[in-house]
Amino acid sequence: MENVIMSDPKKDLFNLAMSDKAQPLMYAVKKHIEDNVAPIMEEFYALEEGKEDRWSWHPRQLELLDGAKAKAKESGLWNFFLPDSETGDGLTNLDYAYIAAELGKVSLASETLNCSAPDTGNMEVLERVGTPEQKEQWLKPLLNGEIRSAYAMTEPGIPSSDAKNISTAAVLDGDEWVINGEKFYISGAGDPRCKIMITMVKTSPDAAPSRQQSQILVPIDTPGVEILEGMQVFGEDHAPRGHMHIKFTNVRVPKSNMLLGEGRGFEISQVRLGPGRIHHCMRSLGQGEQALELMVKRAGSREAFGKPIIKLGKNVEVIARARIELDAMRLMVLQAAKAMDVLGNKEARVYVSAVKAMVPEKVCTIIDQAIQMHGATGISQWTPLAKMYAHQRHLRFADGPDEVHHMVVGRAEAQKHSSW
Amino acid sequence: MENVIMSDPKKDLFNLAMSDKAQPLMYAVKKHIEDNVAPIMEEFYALEEGKEDRWSWHPRQLELLDGAKAKAKESGLWNFFLPDSETGDGLTNLDYAYIAAELGKVSLASETLNCSAPDTGNMEVLERVGTPEQKEQWLKPLLNGEIRSAYAMTEPGIPSSDAKNISTAAVLDGDEWVINGEKFYISGAGDPRCKIMITMVKTSPDAAPSRQQSQILVPIDTPGVEILEGMQVFGEDHAPRGHMHIKFTNVRVPKSNMLLGEGRGFEISQVRLGPGRIHHCMRSLGQGEQALELMVKRAGSREAFGKPIIKLGKNVEVIARARIELDAMRLMVLQAAKAMDVLGNKEARVYVSAVKAMVPEKVCTIIDQAIQMHGATGISQWTPLAKMYAHQRHLRFADGPDEVHHMVVGRAEAQKHSSW
Amino acid sequence: MENVIMSDPKKDLFNLAMSDKAQPLMYAVKKHIEDNVAPIMEEFYALEEGKEDRWSWHPRQLELLDGAKAKAKESGLWNFFLPDSETGDGLTNLDYAYIAAELGKVSLASETLNCSAPDTGNMEVLERVGTPEQKEQWLKPLLNGEIRSAYAMTEPGIPSSDAKNISTAAVLDGDEWVINGEKFYISGAGDPRCKIMITMVKTSPDAAPSRQQSQILVPIDTPGVEILEGMQVFGEDHAPRGHMHIKFTNVRVPKSNMLLGEGRGFEISQVRLGPGRIHHCMRSLGQGEQALELMVKRAGSREAFGKPIIKLGKNVEVIARARIELDAMRLMVLQAAKAMDVLGNKEARVYVSAVKAMVPEKVCTIIDQAIQMHGATGISQWTPLAKMYAHQRHLRFADGPDEVHHMVVGRAEAQKHSSW
Amino acid sequence: MENVIMSDPKKDLFNLAMSDKAQPLMYAVKKHIEDNVAPIMEEFYALEEGKEDRWSWHPRQLELLDGAKAKAKESGLWNFFLPDSETGDGLTNLDYAYIAAELGKVSLASETLNCSAPDTGNMEVLERVGTPEQKEQWLKPLLNGEIRSAYAMTEPGIPSSDAKNISTAAVLDGDEWVINGEKFYISGAGDPRCKIMITMVKTSPDAAPSRQQSQILVPIDTPGVEILEGMQVFGEDHAPRGHMHIKFTNVRVPKSNMLLGEGRGFEISQVRLGPGRIHHCMRSLGQGEQALELMVKRAGSREAFGKPIIKLGKNVEVIARARIELDAMRLMVLQAAKAMDVLGNKEARVYVSAVKAMVPEKVCTIIDQAIQMHGATGISQWTPLAKMYAHQRHLRFADGPDEVHHMVVGRAEAQKHSSW
Repeated sequence: MENVIMSDPKKDLFNLAMSDKAQPLMYAVKKHIEDNVAPIMEEFYALEEGKEDRWSWHPRQLELLDGAKAKAKESGLWNFFLPDSETGDGLTNLDYAYIAAELGKVSLASETLNCSAPDTGNMEVLERVGTPEQKEQWLKPLLNGEIRSAYAMTEPGIPSSDAKNISTAAVLDGDEWVINGEKFYISGAGDPRCKIMITMVKTSPDAAPSRQQSQILVPIDTPGVEILEGMQVFGEDHAPRGHMHIKFTNVRVPKSNMLLGEGRGFEISQVRLGPGRIHHCMRSLGQGEQALELMVKRAGSREAFGKPIIKLGKNVEVIARARIELDAMRLMVLQAAKAMDVLGNKEARVYVSAVKAMVPEKVCTIIDQAIQMHGATGISQWTPLAKMYAHQRHLRFADGPDEVHHMVVGRAEAQKHSSW
Repeated sequence: MENVIMSDPKKDLFNLAMSDKAQPLMYAVKKHIEDNVAPIMEEFYALEEGKEDRWSWHPRQLELLDGAKAKAKESGLWNFFLPDSETGDGLTNLDYAYIAAELGKVSLASETLNCSAPDTGNMEVLERVGTPEQKEQWLKPLLNGEIRSAYAMTEPGIPSSDAKNISTAAVLDGDEWVINGEKFYISGAGDPRCKIMITMVKTSPDAAPSRQQSQILVPIDTPGVEILEGMQVFGEDHAPRGHMHIKFTNVRVPKSNMLLGEGRGFEISQVRLGPGRIHHCMRSLGQGEQALELMVKRAGSREAFGKPIIKLGKNVEVIARARIELDAMRLMVLQAAKAMDVLGNKEARVYVSAVKAMVPEKVCTIIDQAIQMHGATGISQWTPLAKMYAHQRHLRFADGPDEVHHMVVGRAEAQKHSSW
Repeated sequence: MENVIMSDPKKDLFNLAMSDKAQPLMYAVKKHIEDNVAPIMEEFYALEEGKEDRWSWHPRQLELLDGAKAKAKESGLWNFFLPDSETGDGLTNLDYAYIAAELGKVSLASETLNCSAPDTGNMEVLERVGTPEQKEQWLKPLLNGEIRSAYAMTEPGIPSSDAKNISTAAVLDGDEWVINGEKFYISGAGDPRCKIMITMVKTSPDAAPSRQQSQILVPIDTPGVEILEGMQVFGEDHAPRGHMHIKFTNVRVPKSNMLLGEGRGFEISQVRLGPGRIHHCMRSLGQGEQALELMVKRAGSREAFGKPIIKLGKNVEVIARARIELDAMRLMVLQAAKAMDVLGNKEARVYVSAVKAMVPEKVCTIIDQAIQMHGATGISQWTPLAKMYAHQRHLRFADGPDEVHHMVVGRAEAQKHSSW
Repeated sequence: MENVIMSDPKKDLFNLAMSDKAQPLMYAVKKHIEDNVAPIMEEFYALEEGKEDRWSWHPRQLELLDGAKAKAKESGLWNFFLPDSETGDGLTNLDYAYIAAELGKVSLASETLNCSAPDTGNMEVLERVGTPEQKEQWLKPLLNGEIRSAYAMTEPGIPSSDAKNISTAAVLDGDEWVINGEKFYISGAGDPRCKIMITMVKTSPDAAPSRQQSQILVPIDTPGVEILEGMQVFGEDHAPRGHMHIKFTNVRVPKSNMLLGEGRGFEISQVRLGPGRIHHCMRSLGQGEQALELMVKRAGSREAFGKPIIKLGKNVEVIARARIELDAMRLMVLQAAKAMDVLGNKEARVYVSAVKAMVPEKVCTIIDQAIQMHGATGISQWTPLAKMYAHQRHLRFADGPDEVHHMVVGRAEAQKHSSW
């Protein structure tokens, strides 16, 4: 990337400021969060405790969410993540990254604007490669916020570091695909509102390795789809959304549920992975900032040996290093977003892998240091730090473990010098 | 420590082999575990699931434990941790460290031999400093395994890095101490069998800082003792033993419940902390070994890019570094145990702080690497790794955070050269 | 810095692209290096070997340098670092940072354009705070490239982490300042062309701590100025420029040599430190890039166990992490430069400390990894890596050790939350 | 290694105390150093400065050395490293490790006792596998301290991580081996007293990979042996001993110079590598201890911000961690020595690789931290730290880079669980 600095066409990669155009949207989003989301948070989470079935929503929870969603629609903020289907106009990835940072600060904010993962990625895929029928049946209710969706890729039996091994098989039998296999860590599939899964399957075992996989629409209530259990993340299952372990036994879906075409599964992945990873990273930075803030406040207020602990030992250096790393990561994530805007998702792949490998690992470290600064309180229910740590630790596997992304970056570097 | 190598009286610090005398005991303990503990594990933990009240034991669980305890008594293995009260003869710390390593491999083993924490420390304290009445009332049932106990030191409001700040107050009112304050992370206090707490309180706020604290016996059913909640460790509360948050409101205990004497709380701490930390560290090493074994097996069996992942990237180096660090830590822990035998608990303090600062931090890293080697499975309920990580992370705070132990070691080093 | 992202006036901090205005200058500089500097490198360094006195230049070396300097003057590239003395117009710090990156790639480039450290800093200081007489006597020949200069701050007896302790004393005696003390690591003072030192002295020991120091002009040939020896950097003395250890014994300079005024030494430091640190950091990144390139080329061409070592062990991950860190550091340095442009040197101080703490440490690590990838060749005279390492390791002390800069950043973070 | 703890035959691996038998020798060695070596150090090194030819010894230097050697012979300390050639009796590796630690503290000590590397290894090899003629010609003068020797293995063209690639060719031509190739970093080959090199050559390119190499005696004055230059270590060439780059052009030696037999080069390596690595590691620990002592003294005496810097920031923790790591490494090195005693060099190989991978890397870190604690003085000629760093950094390549030793340890671990 060094060499690009001065070459003219890529100069723009260094302009990471938000556009003037996006500013009003940003303010509107912040106002929406302040007016419509923040006020419902306490009631919403209090209702979690009293639920009979952990794998359902309390009706009042949905009412609260729907209220905020209605407000977002009124203000014209609904679905702003999606480019205009005709003109293609829309937010740049860079501008969206700034907004994602705001969304990441309040846990319910994204859903009230219909831009939660994995729905955004699923909607983008359907918008770009769906047939009119697929759009009518699934994109429409998703765009309306009537249903939710999942993305079923990871499998327990194979390393997600090498997606080519995905082994859930789809075999054509007459007009239907018959699917057999297992998926796990399918986030959101526990939500009773989740109706559809975009599922990665192996349809063409004899094709070239990159052409064996396909993506196919599987309604979650199709016979043979069995949710075995919720996978845990450091002991938490995040019910009711959950990270589900799902078994597919002779699951039959119509031939027309195939997306884009047989063997084009990896092609579709290109559409979704870049932006999704950027948003994850911006939210991770939000958590890193929160951890740093907690750490600083604790260090300034807690006393030991007669002085605030920020004046003891390495604490102030730990804080400084956290600030430096967070600022550096933010610039890197913004640049990766810009790279998608300027170079396109495919060419920006190396930038995106760089931040995916960089951010969750370093944010984990920062949260861990915040924990240390809190003593035992840091791992208790009295701070959000343990939950945040678990979540970020999980992200180091989601969409490929760090090792895979380091491989992408390292190989690209080697290729600059014909060393690969 | 460098300089001691060759000075004769300390030469013995380098003989870290188990004594011949302890070998038969070691074998007997291993046989007991194999014959009497291993066979009950599955049933015991299966019963966890079906319990009505998470904060109680299923009667069958206690029956299983009691059966194994009876067997240990029969074989004369009961209470071997405790030196003979008259002759003082007993296991050396070094020999006990080897046995602790075995105990650490099977979670129920310690309790069946009556040598679980914090009971062992509490019994040692009562044995050494208890009055005949205190022994009759509390040591006897503890030695018989009829009741259990807790050690109430840590407080939510003050840094455990500086025990001098302990603020739970005990004020003499006639023949009674009246106690007010809060404690948290009191391990084992949730167990319905827990009857007595050795409680650190401030009795003499005007004395010299190291003479303000005392340790006092507080029966857990004393009016005014209120268990507020179970503290969590990365989302787990370890019910029914738990890590309890306890409030003391005008709790009255007889004057005679004081241990050793007013203002002598820190003196008593010397008795318990050394051995307890060594045992914790040996068990941590047991978890580190288990994590390494899981990591190696996973790395050898999981394939990606056409080969077992142990042949990919840095994995074999990660394994090598884990092995090296575990071996180095084991030697250090054994030497700290030996130092307690040779130099006494007080002089061995720096050795003990060294391993307390070293072991849980490095074992956390090893478990984290085992997690990474497993992908998302590593943080799920399918491996014990996430629970192990949470436990070890907790140990970095128990008995003082790493920072305090580093301070002890660093200051001792400086004092060798008059640099403090 | 988090909070500034969206606040309008600071939005500009994220536009890190080079200005259009500076592009032609950049190209001219690159062309100058290509045409006039690169061709003299080999001869210049070959002459190093044969010199009689290591602490002098070979006449042909100076001839080569002067030739390139003349070319730069002809092309109007001479002194572009300096803002117009009347209008103040000039390169922004951001634009200059991009150019500094180019200069950093070819060791003689800076001098041929009259923008070597510490002359640039000294000229800026004289330009801004010098009297007409001072400018006539020293700034003029410096701007003409006729003489060189040094900046004498660091002292052997005091920690450079705390400049307030600077103890070289200047006492007014009639119309003269009489200076006594010692300075070391005075870079460039060994150069026979070095004629003047801006020297930090303590003039007002009874004033407030930040008002005790002054900066004063000391011609290097003043009686009493004694160069004791060249300080080494990992065994190298970088003759003939050197890093000199200098003793001042009753050195007398006219009262009029004082810069700006008594007690205003730290005020003057603000002028020079920001830009100088940015340029150092950009050059460090240049070395980091060179190390990465060497590492990649070695890893791709060296074989072991039947394959290029880039395909062995952690090597590709090491390369990836180096690329990621270099890219992140570049964005941080550019943002610090931008902060100086947008916020002014004083407010940008925290940004500058952040990169000063970040860059040399991480570049050291990258060079060390390049060394490891080369085997013993990496520390030999066959690669530039050992020299590069030594230089970067030195930078971790120059202008304050990492610890001081971490303190600046950590304290600023704490102050956001009133935690200091 | 975990599993060995309790298995009886290996229990002895944990007795790391020096034997009573070796104590008197240890004291005698210490007294010799005190009486005969320490007093000559200053004069010896002062003579370095004034030498005309850096690649020779000043006659007075040799006189000083020879004097101390004579004293060692008188006291019966000469050659104690070598087991009795008839009975095989001698120091255990463990006892020798303790003595090596003492030798490591004073740079000239080893040579005055005739136990410098690589002579010790070379003498051991000749003693064990030499023919009577070879012993007469080379072992005898080596044992008498009349000549010195070198071990020529590493080659510039191939990775020392994979010795099977050694490519210097020896081809039989009548009664002579004809050798062609290049070696570098041949330590000690610059010493004018160095007369013989044990040289690793490829004699049997068509044999199995582990049977292609042989070791052969090459007198350094054989025609065709050309010393090209001294290789540097971070800019130092360590003249006159040096680390030489040597070219072999049609070098002819008699057939009888072959050691042990054609194709048995790796077999011979087993003899020398274990003990040599242990001694290197003990000396590295000596340097680590010296660095820690310097660091502590500096931290205690240097003041900044009104207090000694040991009370600032992370410094005391850095010191504590250094102490902990040094103690852990010492136990590991002693255990590796013990493993050679108990298990034999071959089986102890994994223990030896563990310490070779562990020690120089961590000692480098400790020295680097000592440098940081000294500020710029730490990299100057005013402390030995920069030289020490360079030396330890070099050791990370000598006898195979860290990566190879990690591979040995990691693979052994994997094989315990059939994961390789």
